[in-house]
Amino acid sequence: MKRIYNFSAGPAILPVEVLQEAANEMLDYQDSGMSVMEMSHRSKIYQSIIDEAEKDLRDLLNIPENYKVLFIQGGATLQFSMIPMNLMINGKADYIITGQWAKKAAEEAAKFGQVNIIASSQDKMFSYIPDISDLPISDDADYVFMCDNNTIYGTKYHELPNTKGKTLISDASSCFLSEPLDVTKYGVIFAGAQKNVGPAGTVIVIIREDLIRKDIDIKTPIMLRYDTYSEHGSMYNTPPTYGIYLCGKVFKWLKKKGGLDVMHRLNVEKANVLYDYLDSSKMFFGTVDKNSRSLMNVTFKSTSPELDDEFIKQAKAAGFDNLKGYRTVGGMRASIYNAMPIEGIKELVKFMQAFEKKNG
Amino acid sequence: MKRIYNFSAGPAILPVEVLQEAANEMLDYQDSGMSVMEMSHRSKIYQSIIDEAEKDLRDLLNIPENYKVLFIQGGATLQFSMIPMNLMINGKADYIITGQWAKKAAEEAAKFGQVNIIASSQDKMFSYIPDISDLPISDDADYVFMCDNNTIYGTKYHELPNTKGKTLISDASSCFLSEPLDVTKYGVIFAGAQKNVGPAGTVIVIIREDLIRKDIDIKTPIMLRYDTYSEHGSMYNTPPTYGIYLCGKVFKWLKKKGGLDVMHRLNVEKANVLYDYLDSSKMFFGTVDKNSRSLMNVTFKSTSPELDDEFIKQAKAAGFDNLKGYRTVGGMRASIYNAMPIEGIKELVKFMQAFEKKNG
Repeated sequence: MKRIYNFSAGPAILPVEVLQEAANEMLDYQDSGMSVMEMSHRSKIYQSIIDEAEKDLRDLLNIPENYKVLFIQGGATLQFSMIPMNLMINGKADYIITGQWAKKAAEEAAKFGQVNIIASSQDKMFSYIPDISDLPISDDADYVFMCDNNTIYGTKYHELPNTKGKTLISDASSCFLSEPLDVTKYGVIFAGAQKNVGPAGTVIVIIREDLIRKDIDIKTPIMLRYDTYSEHGSMYNTPPTYGIYLCGKVFKWLKKKGGLDVMHRLNVEKANVLYDYLDSSKMFFGTVDKNSRSLMNVTFKSTSPELDDEFIKQAKAAGFDNLKGYRTVGGMRASIYNAMPIEGIKELVKFMQAFEKKNG
Repeated sequence: MKRIYNFSAGPAILPVEVLQEAANEMLDYQDSGMSVMEMSHRSKIYQSIIDEAEKDLRDLLNIPENYKVLFIQGGATLQFSMIPMNLMINGKADYIITGQWAKKAAEEAAKFGQVNIIASSQDKMFSYIPDISDLPISDDADYVFMCDNNTIYGTKYHELPNTKGKTLISDASSCFLSEPLDVTKYGVIFAGAQKNVGPAGTVIVIIREDLIRKDIDIKTPIMLRYDTYSEHGSMYNTPPTYGIYLCGKVFKWLKKKGGLDVMHRLNVEKANVLYDYLDSSKMFFGTVDKNSRSLMNVTFKSTSPELDDEFIKQAKAAGFDNLKGYRTVGGMRASIYNAMPIEGIKELVKFMQAFEKKNG
């Protein structure tokens, strides 16, 4: 069996132990005589799978009781619609634009109310997180929206915006569970599973109970109402049962590893291996502001686009795959999520050093 | 490894060969060094997986070129919203109510326009398919909606309604790919994968191109517009990649079995084993009109609810699981989708005969 170092931005690398367990259980989950994907979502055995997944996630993030955990389909993009459809009371919201996804979220919200862009880093191709200490928050804004880690550009917030009392909504897709966070600072945190948690097709939504309202536009589709999910334990209709099962396995793997403090320490250590090399190299350099660097997505370039292409080609042949940067950004991107072992990064740096020596 | 006879209505039994292949490929798909669930949906290797899945489905159903195949999340329930949101031009639609799902679809559509119930079998607990030869179709109806196979009740249409030229929309979730169908007779056919095709979390939508409109309400969420999917090959955002891969494997399994004509013959043979016994038994009897019987979901009762419970309990212990009927219907239901081997049904009938002898 071959396993490569997979630096894909998402869908992305998963812990090999989790995949092995899933393979072992594929035809017979715990002597049930069924695959998890063959089980009724209304069965006791499946209920215990989804309950344990929620419990383990609550343990990992220390989620308070007044927050609901919902498993929803449709990707983070569907959340871009659900957030305004469920949360706009005054019909006004403030958005901080730190990349393409925040921008798309704002465009979608503008269908449902007035959207104010209160900060943006578009002037420098989203290569930094703007100053968020004193934002022009709208008096009657229903919420302030941020995208915590910007997968495409390789930036991350290192402190939370001062929302002046307004509800904070965070798209945490690409940094979810990479470090601890204080759930009580947020109204809603959502994350597509396919970055750091599981297969594509499940979005995890952590939402403060009082934000789940029933008095919203009656034309809101039933599957786009948060109360539909909260009142039925995410099972108004059939949820993505197999995806939730795999997310649950990843939660257990994280707990076994020691939880999010340990993961954070490991992720800092891992990212530093690569950033330290980039800061010392004469051929490769990081592309974003040093104070805005992501621990999950490390973006970098060499001295020319031609050399970038050659590097990506040779790296792939050497077993380091999916290093090509996003098409609007160019260069390279190494996504080093929780499941990427530090050896993968050390080997990559060794390969970069050899490449630099040969081509420098 | 233990495998039971799993009569679950959905999520449901899958071909053991498909599960075995998926297990074998879990850590390394075709020497890529990655699991399919770890692959970027923008990679060449994943593109070939989704392209092949579509091609094989087109082969199986002989889908004409002017129909698009879309892979969408959110379950069939999200289609209950997407259908009226995308297809109501005159703001009026006709619904045939043959069970809970058709009813829910009609209730959801009523949020977006005028819904006319043109036929219903609710008077007899949905135990038959109403006369559909001369329906009071509305002059300016945008479409006529039907639910082909009614999972809960065990009924199926054995001919299509005369829509008098109006576009026919069919929820085919629980009979999809159990027999051939003439796609050209429909405007839209949709099916949740978790009945007969794959894991929960993917809905297959086959839609005639001219029904995919751009001039719909601008407040329609981006992920609820058919054009979002048709213009991006179902990949505007990350699709449920692993689920589509498994659907693709089931399509290949069906082709290898000989296609849908062969499956239909097999499914008739399988269902007859059970229906013939029910018709001859003095203890068990089918619960729906004989002319409306489903090939996929066989509903039956014994002479008393107490005996039903005892039967379900003993059957479970003997390795025949998930035979309990839907809570609003009671009794038993044996879902015998494509993946259920005829041996499973023969063994079940043997068990029923022994139970009848012992308790009769």
